[in-house]
Amino acid sequence: MRTTTGWQAAGPTSLRRTSVERRDLRPDDIAVRVDYCGVCHTDLHALRAYDQHTRVPLVPGHEFTGVVAGIGREVTTFSVGDHVAVGNIVDSCGVCAMCEAGQENFCHSFPTLTYGGTDRHDGSTTLGGYSREYVVRDTFAYPLPSGLDPAAAAPLMCAGVTVWEPLRSLGVRPGSRVAVAGLGGLGHLAVKMAVALGATTTVISRTHDKRDDARRLGAHDLIASTDTQHMATARDTFDVVIDTISAPHDLAPYLKLVAMDGTLSLLGYLGPVTVEAMDLLIGRKKLSSAGSGGRLATAEMLQFCADHSIAADIEVLPSSQVDTALGRLLRNDVRYRFVLDMSDLD
Amino acid sequence: MRTTTGWQAAGPTSLRRTSVERRDLRPDDIAVRVDYCGVCHTDLHALRAYDQHTRVPLVPGHEFTGVVAGIGREVTTFSVGDHVAVGNIVDSCGVCAMCEAGQENFCHSFPTLTYGGTDRHDGSTTLGGYSREYVVRDTFAYPLPSGLDPAAAAPLMCAGVTVWEPLRSLGVRPGSRVAVAGLGGLGHLAVKMAVALGATTTVISRTHDKRDDARRLGAHDLIASTDTQHMATARDTFDVVIDTISAPHDLAPYLKLVAMDGTLSLLGYLGPVTVEAMDLLIGRKKLSSAGSGGRLATAEMLQFCADHSIAADIEVLPSSQVDTALGRLLRNDVRYRFVLDMSDLD
Repeated sequence: MRTTTGWQAAGPTSLRRTSVERRDLRPDDIAVRVDYCGVCHTDLHALRAYDQHTRVPLVPGHEFTGVVAGIGREVTTFSVGDHVAVGNIVDSCGVCAMCEAGQENFCHSFPTLTYGGTDRHDGSTTLGGYSREYVVRDTFAYPLPSGLDPAAAAPLMCAGVTVWEPLRSLGVRPGSRVAVAGLGGLGHLAVKMAVALGATTTVISRTHDKRDDARRLGAHDLIASTDTQHMATARDTFDVVIDTISAPHDLAPYLKLVAMDGTLSLLGYLGPVTVEAMDLLIGRKKLSSAGSGGRLATAEMLQFCADHSIAADIEVLPSSQVDTALGRLLRNDVRYRFVLDMSDLD
Repeated sequence: MRTTTGWQAAGPTSLRRTSVERRDLRPDDIAVRVDYCGVCHTDLHALRAYDQHTRVPLVPGHEFTGVVAGIGREVTTFSVGDHVAVGNIVDSCGVCAMCEAGQENFCHSFPTLTYGGTDRHDGSTTLGGYSREYVVRDTFAYPLPSGLDPAAAAPLMCAGVTVWEPLRSLGVRPGSRVAVAGLGGLGHLAVKMAVALGATTTVISRTHDKRDDARRLGAHDLIASTDTQHMATARDTFDVVIDTISAPHDLAPYLKLVAMDGTLSLLGYLGPVTVEAMDLLIGRKKLSSAGSGGRLATAEMLQFCADHSIAADIEVLPSSQVDTALGRLLRNDVRYRFVLDMSDLD
């Protein structure tokens, strides 16, 4: 086994420094020295749900960048020293219809998650990127395109691909009318990508507070969701509404914004959702959801971001301040993503 | 005013014969001698919701065929003696974006319903097709293509266009995989149309009882929704699932049947519906709804049915037996649509 250092769950928003074991490299594995790891809402959920008394530790983190530190004997696509990025999936069956379609995120036998997942070979529980080293199957690491800042690129690997998937699969193109509800980690990347895809892009935020930010990100307008008159004016005007709001909320006001034959795509909240069928019927609207992406989409997204100089707006903290990051994320006190600098683990 | 005879609400499944007044013909009106009127689930809902003590009577009926008995002075598209069909919409604003797109059913100022609607000119409440004569604006009557039986064609005007809309807007074509959940008034027409569009078509029914019927209608298979193993085998295999079940029900089993990038379209039940966002996410599935159609879709549907010899499987009853029809419809005791013969009103 390989030994490294990481941050392990010790409470809902607290972690403790610990020794982390990594498997010896399989023929198709690479070892990644983790330099930067984004702090995702999922990490908060996982910490809250984690039972401290189980034998298996929880090490969060599923959007990170780093440098290849070692390669298995059959690895040909990476060399030591390459800059790479890893997202929230690190393996899949590879043979089901979804995997063959490049949608490993929908693998029929469930993809292996970057942390809290079950390794397909030895049955061990995967430990995430809040650590100085990660060992990953080569096909689930991505070359980091040059020009992308490794710290600001880390959140692309979860938040980025999560917003990229619906924007692409719903056909956003020049002239599309896109609304992004919720301007946070996902939302701010959705705005940047929608704008770069040529869409007329509007932010829906609770208040006008983020108007300047929205404009700086490239958005053409901001609608305060509390401004019922503005919301009414905007009815039926967006081909795609990307809803990144992470708490349960009434979908009706957002469904009303969708234009004829358009789609409301839910990204932020993934529990049970209720809509009036009549609100779908009038205007032939659709409800969908998205999260994560397959290997093809992830690679495509990274290249698109490099081509359009898109990365996350981040606040970098030394990994020793992970508790601060989690606590502030819980209060939405970040514009727009925390990234942990792992070099303090050396 | 013109005076005719019709059937007016007297209880949840009972009506009484009554005199019905129709407006004098406006320049763009036609008078239709109603020969056949289908009995739709909506009629049951309307009767149940109807307050006997209001001043305005309720005359149901919004899918009927007949013969032109008179025309307004500006009518050029119809002549006395023409066979026509009328559906559940009899007017719209004509100037909003939806009307201009040929989607009068989504008219921003709400289309005028065939009964229980409000006439856009005199503010009167519309009285439906359970009567011997109906007066309608010429643009909302459709020539009945020759070759279509007037009795069996009547249900096409509501049930038919309701299933036609999603089949067409969701792009069903040769090779599409379509499932139709619920084999009733809507479902049996959905099967016929999907088959005629070239789709491989499967019926989802509670039991195997309707297997022979499904095959006779052209379906390639029937899955009993209570057969969990068969339902599991069929997971992720349908591009379009048309759900015509009219009672509230769990959507999860039907959403599971939808293939990657496919759609579950709700037709039968139009109240609040709840789904797990995760069930939409996995496989990038969409939820939609449909009901009724615009003028273009209605005309297109009628011609398609004439070209493919499609009409409803009906049981014709004299209109005096309307209470029997409603009572039996309430118990789902009809294969697959009651049609009232209005000639006994003479």
